[in-house]
Amino acid sequence: MRMGMVGLGRMGANMAQRLMRAGHEVVGHARRRATVDSFMAEGGLGAYTLADLIDKLPAPRVVWCMVPAATVDALLTELVPLLAAGDIVVDGGNSFYQDDICRARELASKGLHYVDVGTSGGVWGGERGYCLMIGGEPSIMPVLDPVFRALAPGTTAAAPTPGRVAGQGSADLGYLHCGPHGAGHFVKMVHNGIEYGLMAAYAEGLNILKSAGVGAAAHGQDAETAPLRHPEHFQYDFNIAEVAELWRRGSVVSSWLLDLTAAALHDSPDLSGFAGRVADSGEGRWTVQAAVEEGVPAPVITAALYARFGSRGHADFADRVLAAMRYQFGGHVEKG
Amino acid sequence: MRMGMVGLGRMGANMAQRLMRAGHEVVGHARRRATVDSFMAEGGLGAYTLADLIDKLPAPRVVWCMVPAATVDALLTELVPLLAAGDIVVDGGNSFYQDDICRARELASKGLHYVDVGTSGGVWGGERGYCLMIGGEPSIMPVLDPVFRALAPGTTAAAPTPGRVAGQGSADLGYLHCGPHGAGHFVKMVHNGIEYGLMAAYAEGLNILKSAGVGAAAHGQDAETAPLRHPEHFQYDFNIAEVAELWRRGSVVSSWLLDLTAAALHDSPDLSGFAGRVADSGEGRWTVQAAVEEGVPAPVITAALYARFGSRGHADFADRVLAAMRYQFGGHVEKG
Amino acid sequence: MRMGMVGLGRMGANMAQRLMRAGHEVVGHARRRATVDSFMAEGGLGAYTLADLIDKLPAPRVVWCMVPAATVDALLTELVPLLAAGDIVVDGGNSFYQDDICRARELASKGLHYVDVGTSGGVWGGERGYCLMIGGEPSIMPVLDPVFRALAPGTTAAAPTPGRVAGQGSADLGYLHCGPHGAGHFVKMVHNGIEYGLMAAYAEGLNILKSAGVGAAAHGQDAETAPLRHPEHFQYDFNIAEVAELWRRGSVVSSWLLDLTAAALHDSPDLSGFAGRVADSGEGRWTVQAAVEEGVPAPVITAALYARFGSRGHADFADRVLAAMRYQFGGHVEKG
Amino acid sequence: MRMGMVGLGRMGANMAQRLMRAGHEVVGHARRRATVDSFMAEGGLGAYTLADLIDKLPAPRVVWCMVPAATVDALLTELVPLLAAGDIVVDGGNSFYQDDICRARELASKGLHYVDVGTSGGVWGGERGYCLMIGGEPSIMPVLDPVFRALAPGTTAAAPTPGRVAGQGSADLGYLHCGPHGAGHFVKMVHNGIEYGLMAAYAEGLNILKSAGVGAAAHGQDAETAPLRHPEHFQYDFNIAEVAELWRRGSVVSSWLLDLTAAALHDSPDLSGFAGRVADSGEGRWTVQAAVEEGVPAPVITAALYARFGSRGHADFADRVLAAMRYQFGGHVEKG
Repeated sequence: MRMGMVGLGRMGANMAQRLMRAGHEVVGHARRRATVDSFMAEGGLGAYTLADLIDKLPAPRVVWCMVPAATVDALLTELVPLLAAGDIVVDGGNSFYQDDICRARELASKGLHYVDVGTSGGVWGGERGYCLMIGGEPSIMPVLDPVFRALAPGTTAAAPTPGRVAGQGSADLGYLHCGPHGAGHFVKMVHNGIEYGLMAAYAEGLNILKSAGVGAAAHGQDAETAPLRHPEHFQYDFNIAEVAELWRRGSVVSSWLLDLTAAALHDSPDLSGFAGRVADSGEGRWTVQAAVEEGVPAPVITAALYARFGSRGHADFADRVLAAMRYQFGGHVEKG
Repeated sequence: MRMGMVGLGRMGANMAQRLMRAGHEVVGHARRRATVDSFMAEGGLGAYTLADLIDKLPAPRVVWCMVPAATVDALLTELVPLLAAGDIVVDGGNSFYQDDICRARELASKGLHYVDVGTSGGVWGGERGYCLMIGGEPSIMPVLDPVFRALAPGTTAAAPTPGRVAGQGSADLGYLHCGPHGAGHFVKMVHNGIEYGLMAAYAEGLNILKSAGVGAAAHGQDAETAPLRHPEHFQYDFNIAEVAELWRRGSVVSSWLLDLTAAALHDSPDLSGFAGRVADSGEGRWTVQAAVEEGVPAPVITAALYARFGSRGHADFADRVLAAMRYQFGGHVEKG
Repeated sequence: MRMGMVGLGRMGANMAQRLMRAGHEVVGHARRRATVDSFMAEGGLGAYTLADLIDKLPAPRVVWCMVPAATVDALLTELVPLLAAGDIVVDGGNSFYQDDICRARELASKGLHYVDVGTSGGVWGGERGYCLMIGGEPSIMPVLDPVFRALAPGTTAAAPTPGRVAGQGSADLGYLHCGPHGAGHFVKMVHNGIEYGLMAAYAEGLNILKSAGVGAAAHGQDAETAPLRHPEHFQYDFNIAEVAELWRRGSVVSSWLLDLTAAALHDSPDLSGFAGRVADSGEGRWTVQAAVEEGVPAPVITAALYARFGSRGHADFADRVLAAMRYQFGGHVEKG
Repeated sequence: MRMGMVGLGRMGANMAQRLMRAGHEVVGHARRRATVDSFMAEGGLGAYTLADLIDKLPAPRVVWCMVPAATVDALLTELVPLLAAGDIVVDGGNSFYQDDICRARELASKGLHYVDVGTSGGVWGGERGYCLMIGGEPSIMPVLDPVFRALAPGTTAAAPTPGRVAGQGSADLGYLHCGPHGAGHFVKMVHNGIEYGLMAAYAEGLNILKSAGVGAAAHGQDAETAPLRHPEHFQYDFNIAEVAELWRRGSVVSSWLLDLTAAALHDSPDLSGFAGRVADSGEGRWTVQAAVEEGVPAPVITAALYARFGSRGHADFADRVLAAMRYQFGGHVEKG
C-alpha cells in the first residue's frame, strides 16, 4: 500500500526503507528539503510540504508520524486541517500516553482516526525489525495490518514459546494491538522503564566486578574511612570485556542488551570515551509516575532512573546537606 | 578423558550426560545407591563410594563436585584423604567465593589443586550448554580445557560480537578463566546479582501493566486513601502474556529471561499457581555485601533482593511500626 | 479578629480552639448540624450554612477551610459566589499545590485572594501549636499575621539556632510565607515526603533489631534457603521498647517521631494491635512525582513510599512473576 | 569511683570531663605525652604509659577504651597482660559487634570482663550527655552503673513517655544494658543506620525544594532531554534555611538532626563550603549487611548508604556502562 511518513530522521528513514523493501510505497516528508532529497535518492517518494504529501496519498490516507514527542502537537496543528474524515494518523514516536488520549478524542471529533504505536528497536530496527506496541480503535487495525507486518521482525526473530500455537495472535510476529488509545505508548513506556532497570542491573554488576581489586589499594585508617575488614577477599583484576562476552553464551543473564554491552566493552574495555552523564528521555520518568499513581512499588526501575539523575550531578545539594550535618554533629571534615 | 562427578542431582547428572555425549568418560558418585544405579543405566560409570570413585580415575585425577554449597566442606573432609598430590578438585556448585580462597589454600598444602567453577544454565544447561566462570591456578587450566569445552555452549550460542576475532579467547565458547581462586564464584555471584535485578525489572514492569486498570475500580475518598487524580488515564486491561510474547521480538528488552517469562505466562496468564513467596539462595545477598564492602552503590540489585525478603513477609514488624506511628501522630486507624 | 472556619473535624476544631484561646473570634461551619452545635457548646460562634457564616464575618472576610482535599473544589463552588472582592480564602488542608495554582488564578479573576497553608502538627497541634507553611500574595500576609501567630507554636518550641538573631523572621515562631501560590502546600508536600523517609528509617532499624535473634531459629539447609553463615552472630533478643526509649535521650536519632514510637511500643511492645497495612494519603506520592519532574534523585523517600505500597500487598503480581521465572529456569518450587 | 580512660581525643576527653564533673576520678592515658599533659591541666589524673595507668587504678580495675575501632585490637594486645582477673575493659568506641563477641570470649579465658558500649552524642555529648547502648555480662552492670549514670543525659533530656512509670529501667536515664556481648555495639550500629536514613530523608527533601525553580531555567528540547511538561509548576525560589528553621517548631519532622541542619543552613544558606563528598565510617555498611544476613529489607537505610558511595564518585564506571549501552542501541551521544 501507499502511505505517508512524516519525519525522516534516524528512525523514520529506516522504517520507510524497511516498508519499501516489503513492497509498500512510502511518501516521505521532512522539514528540511535536503532530507527529502536524500530520501528520494534512496528510492522513496518525496514531498517537500505536508500538503504535497497529503495530495500524493489515496483515501483513506495513512500518515505515520515519526517526530520528536515535543513537536507532535505542532505537527498535528498543521496536519489535521489537510486531512479528510476516515484518514488515519499514526504517532510512532515516544509520546506520553496521556497525550494520545487527548489527541485521539480531538481527532475523533473531526472523523479522523488516531493510532499510537510504541516502537522499539533503536538504530538496529531497520535490519532486525521493529517491535510495535499499538493502541487505538480495533476497527482500524486491519487497515494497518500490512504496515505493521512489514515493520515487525516476524516469527523467526525468536524461538517459539513452548506450547504456543503459531499464528494465534500477532505477538508472535512482533506487533500487538494492546488496547484503546494510549495503550501502545503505555506499554512502550513500561517497556522502557524495564529497559532502565535491565541496563542498571548490568551496570551495577560490572561496577562491582570493576572494583573487586579494592583490597589491593591503599586504604585510609582514619575515622572518616570505613574499614575494609578483609582486603584479601578483594584482590581480583577482572577482564570485564571478556566476562561480558562470556555471559552471552548459556548464562541466565544473556540478552540483547548484554550483546550490546559486550560490543561496547570490546571496542573500549574501560569505556574511557564516555563521561557517564546518562540522559533520560521521559519514558522512565513516566513509568515511575504511573507506578506511583497506581500505588504499586517499582523500586528497581526507580533506582535505575535515580542513578541517571545522580550521574548528572543532581544530588549535589543533597550531598552537601549530608556533609554539613556530619560536620555539625561530629565535627567531621570532608576528605579530598 | 575420564573424570569423576560427585553429586548426580539435577545439575550433576545433566552435566555428566553432556560430557559423555562429547566423548568423555564420567565416573559418577552419589550418596544414594539408587541414584548411582540410574546413572549407570544411562551410560555412566558408577561408584557407590568415594573410595571406589577415586580408584576408577587415572592420575592426576579430576573430581568435579556438584553438591549443595552447604555440604561441600563435609565432602572435602571425606574426599581429600583419598587424593594424591597433583589431583584436581573442581567445585562446580554455588559456593561463596571466600570459602574457595580458604579451601584452595588448605588443599594446596597437600599438593592438591582446587578450581572453583560458577555454572550458569539451570535445568536447560544440559541441552543449551553451561556458561562456566572459572577461578584457580592458570597452570591447571589446560588440563581441564577439554572438560570446559564440552560443557560450554560453544560459539554458535550467540552471534559474533562485531569486530571481535573468533578464537581470541575462550569467552566466545562460553567458558573463561576469570582469575585466581574464588574468581569463578565471584563472577558467578555477581552474575546472579544481575539476574536478580533483571528479573525484578520485568516483574515490576508487568505489575505496572497489570494495575493499569486501577482507574476503573472503586476508590475510597477518605483521608486514608491517596486520591487517583485522573482515573480516566488508568482504564487499561492488558493481556500480559501477549505483551511478554511481543517483546521477545525486536525490542530492546528481549532476553532469555523474557523468553521464560513469556512461557510461564502462556501456561498461566495470571500465574495463579504461584503464591509469590520468592526464595533467595545466597548469591544475591553476597553480591550486595560485596558491593557494600567495595563501597560501590548497587541500588537496583539490592532493591531486587529486598523485594524477595518482602515477598516472604519479612517487613511485617517494620510495617506495624509505621502503622503505629501514624496512629500516634495523626490518629490514623488502619483500613481493612 | 473575627474569622470563619469551614470544617470542624479533628483538625479544624482544634485549630479554632487554639485561635479562641488567643483571643480571636471564630465562626465555625460544618455540614452536620450536630458538629456545629458541639462547636458552639465549646465556646465558638456557629453557622449552620455557608451563607450564614459569610453574614457573620466583617469585610474583608477571612474564611479558613479545613476540609478533605478531595472536597475543596466542591466547597469553593459553593463558597465563592457568596464572597466579595477583597475577601480571603485560606486552604489549610492537604491540597495538591498544583490545584492551588489553578484555584488562585480563578479566585483572582473575581477579586478574591487565595492563600494555601500547609499545616503540620496532627492531633497534637492544638496543644503544641501548628507549623504553618504559607503560599500566596505577600500583600495579604499582614492581614493574616495575627491568625498565623496564634496557631503557630512560638519561639519557645525549640532552642534558638546558634547565631540566629531572634525576630529576624517568622520562622522562629513556627510559620513562614514560603512563596507565591502553591508554595505553602509544596513545602508541606516535601515535609510529608521527608516524614515518610524518617518513619521508614526507624521502622527498618527496629525491624533489624527485632530479627537479631534469627540465628537461634531452625534454618533450612536446602537449595531454596540462603544460608546464615554465622548463626552465632544473630542470637540477640532485644527489648525494642526500651531501646526506643533509650534513644530519646542524648542520641543523634532523637526526634518527635521517635518520642511517638517509644510511646507506641510502651503501650504494646510487639504492636500486635496493628496489621501493618500502611496507608498513604497523597503527599508522599506527590513528593516523588515532583522529584521525578525536577530530575533529582529521592531514593529514600521513594523507598519509604514503596514500602507502604508493598505493605498493602500491591507487589503481589510482581512476586508471582519472580516465582514463575525461578520455576522456569531452575525448576525452583516455592516453599510454604 | 576511680577509673581509667584510654584515648583522650574529642570523645574520650569530653567523657572524662563529664565523669569528673559528676565526682568520679579519671586516670587518663593517650599515646602522645602532650595530650596527657593537657588532660592533667584540665584536672584529670595522667598516665604516660598503660602500665602507669593500671598502677593507679584500684582492683577490680575499670578501663574505658575510647580509641578508633581499627586500633582496639592492638591496644588490647598491650593492655590485657597488665590486667588481673576480675578487671573490666570497656570498649566505648565504634567497634563492629562481631569483634566484641570474639574479644569477650578471649578476655573471659583470662578472667577478664569485656563490656561493649555504643556511645551516641558526638561533639555535643559532653554537654548534653551520652546515650549509652551496653552489651556484656549482666553481673558486671552494677559495678559500672555509677559511670553510666554520670555519662548519660538523665531523665530530663526528654519529656516522659505517656504512661511510663519513672524509674522502671535505666532507659529513662539514657543508658541501657541491651544484652550479651556485642549487644551494645549492635544497637549502636542500627542506631547509626537509622541516622543515615534520617539524614538522607532531610537531604533529599531539601534538594527537592532547592530544585523547585527548574521550570524557570532554559530546557533542551532534543531527544536526549526529558521534557518538563509543566514548567509553570516549578517556579519557586525557596529560602531553604528559613524552611529548615520553620520545621523545628510544631512539625512532625522536628528532630535534633533538623536542629543541626537549620544551624548549618543559617551559617551558609547554600552550603558552598562543602563539596558533598560524604564519608561513611562503617556502621551504615554493617547495618545493611546485618539486614541482608537476617533477610529483612532495609531499602531506606541502604539507599542512604549508596547515596554516600555515589557522592564520592563510586558509580562512575556503572554510569559509563549505561552511556555506552545507550550509544550502542540508540546512537545516543552524551550531552556536555
